[in-house]
Amino acid sequence: MAAGWFHLSVLALSSLGLISILFTIYWMHSWHGGFAWDGSILMFNCHPVLMVAGMVVVYSAASLVYRLPQSWVGSKLPWKITHASLHLMAFILTVLGLVAVFRYHNNKNITNLYSLHSWLGITTVFLFACQWFLGFTVFLLPWASVWLRSLLKPLHVFFGASILSLAIASVISGINEKLFFSLKNATKPYSSLPGEAVFANSTGMLVVIFGLLVLYVLQASSWKRPQVGITTEGQPLLRERE
Amino acid sequence: MAAGWFHLSVLALSSLGLISILFTIYWMHSWHGGFAWDGSILMFNCHPVLMVAGMVVVYSAASLVYRLPQSWVGSKLPWKITHASLHLMAFILTVLGLVAVFRYHNNKNITNLYSLHSWLGITTVFLFACQWFLGFTVFLLPWASVWLRSLLKPLHVFFGASILSLAIASVISGINEKLFFSLKNATKPYSSLPGEAVFANSTGMLVVIFGLLVLYVLQASSWKRPQVGITTEGQPLLRERE
Repeated sequence: MAAGWFHLSVLALSSLGLISILFTIYWMHSWHGGFAWDGSILMFNCHPVLMVAGMVVVYSAASLVYRLPQSWVGSKLPWKITHASLHLMAFILTVLGLVAVFRYHNNKNITNLYSLHSWLGITTVFLFACQWFLGFTVFLLPWASVWLRSLLKPLHVFFGASILSLAIASVISGINEKLFFSLKNATKPYSSLPGEAVFANSTGMLVVIFGLLVLYVLQASSWKRPQVGITTEGQPLLRERE
Repeated sequence: MAAGWFHLSVLALSSLGLISILFTIYWMHSWHGGFAWDGSILMFNCHPVLMVAGMVVVYSAASLVYRLPQSWVGSKLPWKITHASLHLMAFILTVLGLVAVFRYHNNKNITNLYSLHSWLGITTVFLFACQWFLGFTVFLLPWASVWLRSLLKPLHVFFGASILSLAIASVISGINEKLFFSLKNATKPYSSLPGEAVFANSTGMLVVIFGLLVLYVLQASSWKRPQVGITTEGQPLLRERE
């Protein structure tokens, strides 16, 4: 039952993450003409997809690596490498997402980084870069002392969850902003809730639900690596320890 | 030193929360003509102020009650009543904030609840209402068993932090949306970053910083009530316990 619940949760989270990406692709494909990498509006369309994929879904997958019971036993190094590699993949997708919007803006002489969405978004990416770099140097490279690691770990964990929360806030404000832009002169304005508005709003709410579930798993004690001294052999997979 | 750090943190958080409210008031006062309660745009201006005050600042103060060392000793009941009362005050401010925007919309025949900002905002308020009602019935009224309380407490704590995160995402998307509306036909558009845009964007970032600090204090073990069995007499006020 515990193992069944665990597998169901992994399946639900993976499906929700995948659906969030697919919904963003469908939104950009069906209402905005699809994708290209040529500085046109079709290049801008890559921005929401790459941000949802990078800063939310792959980021979440990377963060959840240590919640897999397989990572609780044996050497931690392969899981650290997986954690860092997946986060690097998330970061690359995120940077490509930024390239997509900056190149589109520059091509059309649109100012960069003026909206609150962009201020929060770029701050989130900057925090992510710092987090990855510090995580890599302190927790993956062998030079840092146990004292330094145990000092920085709570901050690393806190910023891990915070960056995901800020990414979700950026996604919400981004979808909201995009809908006000694209439905400005539409025959059915945003306020009349045309199909695109309902679909994109729902995509935003889906990203929020996905993010909340990830944040729940990240902080729930039953999903964490058992503390040193507690034997894992006789312990049910996901039993509440308190 | 530990006590000094604690008082400095309380002072910093209180100041940041107060400044967030004052900045929102100043934004609405200086660029949008101030406040009224008459269904006009001046009534709408109460909406951002009441939401930042209710859903972010007073909500945070209410959440942080159990992080005061004074609450760690003696009877928990007065602190539970303070926690519930402050949250009730936050909820009343929030409902007034909703009344402000609904009455303005209805007066001007503007559709309610169409933007993603409004979908997320109303969901957040709904979750807050459920959280308050469940918290009141389970943790304040005497009927619930210890088993039920210990079962629901992790969920109560998780949703407490989640609702604050969602409130911040709602505030960010709300400020962003308001700036696109109010600077649409301005001589200096949003993209040229006029004074209002810089001020309101900064207010949004201030709310984010305040929210992150509150979330940090909420989850940091050194700010939590010491576990049963650990004597508090010899323990420094904010010593890290791990």
